[in-house]
Amino acid sequence: MPALTWIITDIDNDIQQDNFRITPADLPGTSQAGQQPAWSVTQRVLHGGLREGVRLIEIDNGRMKLMVLPTRGMGIWRACLNGNQVLGWQSPVRGPVHPAWVPIAEPSGLGWLEGFDELLVRCGLESNGAPDFDEQGRLLYPLHGRIPNRPSCHVELTVDDSAGTITVRGIVEETRFHFQKLRLRAAVTTTIGSSSFSIHDEVENFGGTAAEMQLLYHINLGEPLLGAGARIVAPIREVEPHDLASIANTKTWDLYEPPTAGVPEQCFFLDLLSDQADQTRVLLKNAEGSAGVALRFNTCVLPCFTVWKNMVASADGYVTGLEPATNFPNKRSFETQHGRVIPLAPGATWSAQVGIDWLTRVEEVTGVEKAVGKLGETTGATLP
Amino acid sequence: MPALTWIITDIDNDIQQDNFRITPADLPGTSQAGQQPAWSVTQRVLHGGLREGVRLIEIDNGRMKLMVLPTRGMGIWRACLNGNQVLGWQSPVRGPVHPAWVPIAEPSGLGWLEGFDELLVRCGLESNGAPDFDEQGRLLYPLHGRIPNRPSCHVELTVDDSAGTITVRGIVEETRFHFQKLRLRAAVTTTIGSSSFSIHDEVENFGGTAAEMQLLYHINLGEPLLGAGARIVAPIREVEPHDLASIANTKTWDLYEPPTAGVPEQCFFLDLLSDQADQTRVLLKNAEGSAGVALRFNTCVLPCFTVWKNMVASADGYVTGLEPATNFPNKRSFETQHGRVIPLAPGATWSAQVGIDWLTRVEEVTGVEKAVGKLGETTGATLP
Amino acid sequence: MPALTWIITDIDNDIQQDNFRITPADLPGTSQAGQQPAWSVTQRVLHGGLREGVRLIEIDNGRMKLMVLPTRGMGIWRACLNGNQVLGWQSPVRGPVHPAWVPIAEPSGLGWLEGFDELLVRCGLESNGAPDFDEQGRLLYPLHGRIPNRPSCHVELTVDDSAGTITVRGIVEETRFHFQKLRLRAAVTTTIGSSSFSIHDEVENFGGTAAEMQLLYHINLGEPLLGAGARIVAPIREVEPHDLASIANTKTWDLYEPPTAGVPEQCFFLDLLSDQADQTRVLLKNAEGSAGVALRFNTCVLPCFTVWKNMVASADGYVTGLEPATNFPNKRSFETQHGRVIPLAPGATWSAQVGIDWLTRVEEVTGVEKAVGKLGETTGATLP
Repeated sequence: MPALTWIITDIDNDIQQDNFRITPADLPGTSQAGQQPAWSVTQRVLHGGLREGVRLIEIDNGRMKLMVLPTRGMGIWRACLNGNQVLGWQSPVRGPVHPAWVPIAEPSGLGWLEGFDELLVRCGLESNGAPDFDEQGRLLYPLHGRIPNRPSCHVELTVDDSAGTITVRGIVEETRFHFQKLRLRAAVTTTIGSSSFSIHDEVENFGGTAAEMQLLYHINLGEPLLGAGARIVAPIREVEPHDLASIANTKTWDLYEPPTAGVPEQCFFLDLLSDQADQTRVLLKNAEGSAGVALRFNTCVLPCFTVWKNMVASADGYVTGLEPATNFPNKRSFETQHGRVIPLAPGATWSAQVGIDWLTRVEEVTGVEKAVGKLGETTGATLP
Repeated sequence: MPALTWIITDIDNDIQQDNFRITPADLPGTSQAGQQPAWSVTQRVLHGGLREGVRLIEIDNGRMKLMVLPTRGMGIWRACLNGNQVLGWQSPVRGPVHPAWVPIAEPSGLGWLEGFDELLVRCGLESNGAPDFDEQGRLLYPLHGRIPNRPSCHVELTVDDSAGTITVRGIVEETRFHFQKLRLRAAVTTTIGSSSFSIHDEVENFGGTAAEMQLLYHINLGEPLLGAGARIVAPIREVEPHDLASIANTKTWDLYEPPTAGVPEQCFFLDLLSDQADQTRVLLKNAEGSAGVALRFNTCVLPCFTVWKNMVASADGYVTGLEPATNFPNKRSFETQHGRVIPLAPGATWSAQVGIDWLTRVEEVTGVEKAVGKLGETTGATLP
Repeated sequence: MPALTWIITDIDNDIQQDNFRITPADLPGTSQAGQQPAWSVTQRVLHGGLREGVRLIEIDNGRMKLMVLPTRGMGIWRACLNGNQVLGWQSPVRGPVHPAWVPIAEPSGLGWLEGFDELLVRCGLESNGAPDFDEQGRLLYPLHGRIPNRPSCHVELTVDDSAGTITVRGIVEETRFHFQKLRLRAAVTTTIGSSSFSIHDEVENFGGTAAEMQLLYHINLGEPLLGAGARIVAPIREVEPHDLASIANTKTWDLYEPPTAGVPEQCFFLDLLSDQADQTRVLLKNAEGSAGVALRFNTCVLPCFTVWKNMVASADGYVTGLEPATNFPNKRSFETQHGRVIPLAPGATWSAQVGIDWLTRVEEVTGVEKAVGKLGETTGATLP
């Protein structure tokens, strides 16, 4: 049976399905339905508080549930396994937050922080780093860019019953007349019955003149996976601490402390080794080595990897960010000086994939550790 | 019969009742229903213009109707008595305004003024005064703070039939990751058949590190109560005029002129006397002494009282503000220098009560005047 | 039969008709219904992407359809003729955009550009030109003002069957407590079966003190009408190029080049001749002279006319703006210095009309050209 596609949102054709639900029973010839996990994909509109009007797509692949936010740039709010384990983190911000409540244009450039609570946030597209200002102190680029607070103008679900995969695609545009005309085609795919998913993104310059872009995947993990003794395993060529608080802790860049009120955040910029196909892997495992999250991506496409360690009190958002990206999340002007922006000719596209495996058994964790080990050195850091 | 509670909004449990209505008939055993005033509590969503999407709760206690705005920080839009008298004021802004239309993050810091039309606005929680800027002129604290333009994430109604009271509670959070994590639990209670209501608020620092807060109750009264000859009666220790326009009018700080186009606003900072339990009262009465509004509150909890006199043309918003608060509504940096911020340890809470009596008979007005008189000097002003 | 009026929105009376439709069958005595074109007026709410929540009124006069946006200051999104020809332009912004997504208060003052895609945008009311800043670089007046991103608080439809006209009226307020209190009463009228429409606007200072206003009609035309060889025909007294890119092209101010990626926009300020009743006409015709758009307005009321030529690639928004206005779209402070603001005493109103004819035959185009010719010189430019 060929893959089937359902349109959830399409502004060009005036389609917006507020209450959407597809299950195996919606496939023609449901004979296999009894054999495969009872997957489903639903969309609904959230109400109340800061979430009023946010659309939530829940992809339940029969084992894992992914919560996708078309209203927030196709971010992934959180993932759940077996109905009770949650992948993500506890932000003091109680989201998902509708972008109308996120003051990204505030003069400080920090308003983005009022909407930050997701497992996976795309940062970009014109810029993705720290706030940047003109010589008069006027905001030029807000923290982490505009795309995570833009809504999708097209959303669709594809089920490939033969391949056993479910894919949700969304189109999000970051457009300002006279300025950027960037279109994100974001896809998330999961295999039925698995605890893995992957991101397949494409960014197009649909304007008539040359453009530049940046993209960073802000993947955020907190308790219970994160905790004292949790550790990153990565094939590092070099680790560069970002600031004074990080320099003082460079030797333990890969190790996590317990939640501690008031400790400064740390940030490390990693240069990763990869295989002959430029593929690399990064693992975050818990202290026991019994659970983890592993990333897979291409270091030519996403050459900069940032580890953000925010080991504050749980109430303040104890979390780490694993962040494969086109660049480091410095100010846009600094990254431009260092050549870390992606030029896009008119009509040109850039694309990337990130695979995310949620590991729940010791053997899975050690398996990834071995795979990382084959790529190269996994501990130690070279100071700049 | 114990008090009964109904949930109107609760984001944690995906509850949002858009069309909510409770009357005595909803109480178990309605035998008393015929004897007590026909009270009701309803919630609905407003539509059109700047009010699109604003939730309005109407508490009708059988005599007085209170209009509460969960979408606007649990502010009180206005009160009505006997179906035709209105307590509040006529703002040129035609609200209630949905926060999406209020540009509080505008560089001037004055965008709050586009949403200002309520009887009672809470100003806070991180700051509550004039806009404050950094050394480059970038906005740090917008006018009157963020809480009045934040939505409630939990709202509930409690009816205590034995006590004859109706209470609406709301939770509003002012949260920015890396910055404040302040939670307001706001309650408004009214006794069935009365023309009084009271505010019971609690502010919690739910973050893991020390925080600071400010809160000011901006209680706004206009015509017909306010008018030429209306007067404030308060037990004053000291009156401090805020600026040049106020200094020139210090002797008449307690007296109101008729609406006059273009006159500058005046502002007086009051130090109030109180009784042995730290309770004080402030009265605004009309020229005839036949109607008024009286406040009751604790001067240890709310030590700073501001009288704002905006005696402009009716079309521009002829109104006075009676403003019990933790501080004076100066810039946050100035108030910090003078120690007028409330420190909140992690998990700590601050709480306050303000009673508001709508007086409609001469005897009620003179009764409050006598009560104020017992507290101390009620006229005259000591210049700084 | 007298004219009939239906209320679509009225916040004072809690009226908001989300799904509204009137056709000849709704008129009392439908005997004429079979004889006149099958006109209709509908309103609905758009969903998905940036258009979520935007109300769209479609006035179908039997020949031409006008799409009016009460959520966006009563702007006109586009017009359609015979179901397939479109008047308007292809903006890279895919609107109509709900104002909640338009960051007009962004420090740059350029956020307005994220919502720009209409055929007719009113710019105003406090200001209508380039962003203007205070001496610290803080935004005072955002690009093109606030009114195009304000919602209507009252909308109504009037059908005058005797006159054969359909009129939609909207009220939009631009109000900030302590600052402006300006009310726009906007009306668009079309004759059944025609390809013309007219704007009848009134701006009132409903505050108690003197105010100032500016208004500019940003009428935007793109392909297929616009293209290489398209030309403006206008009775000019003087043409003033606005900047260096324009000065270099003054001789061809009235002629359009094909879409060309990256060319700078040009802007010309025109002083127009008019007849004894102060009426003037401006025509934009295609290269073949077979189609055009003609404007009619009063040069005493709208003395400043700007031609904006944005001859960039189609993907970037190939478009020209014909802009009758009270002033030129310079910074507010500059226009104030040159006396180009309209004073409005308390309660005073200003009103204007603009007629817009969509010409679809050679004879119509040549007819307007002759009418313009009678008003005076139509080519050549006087450099300042």
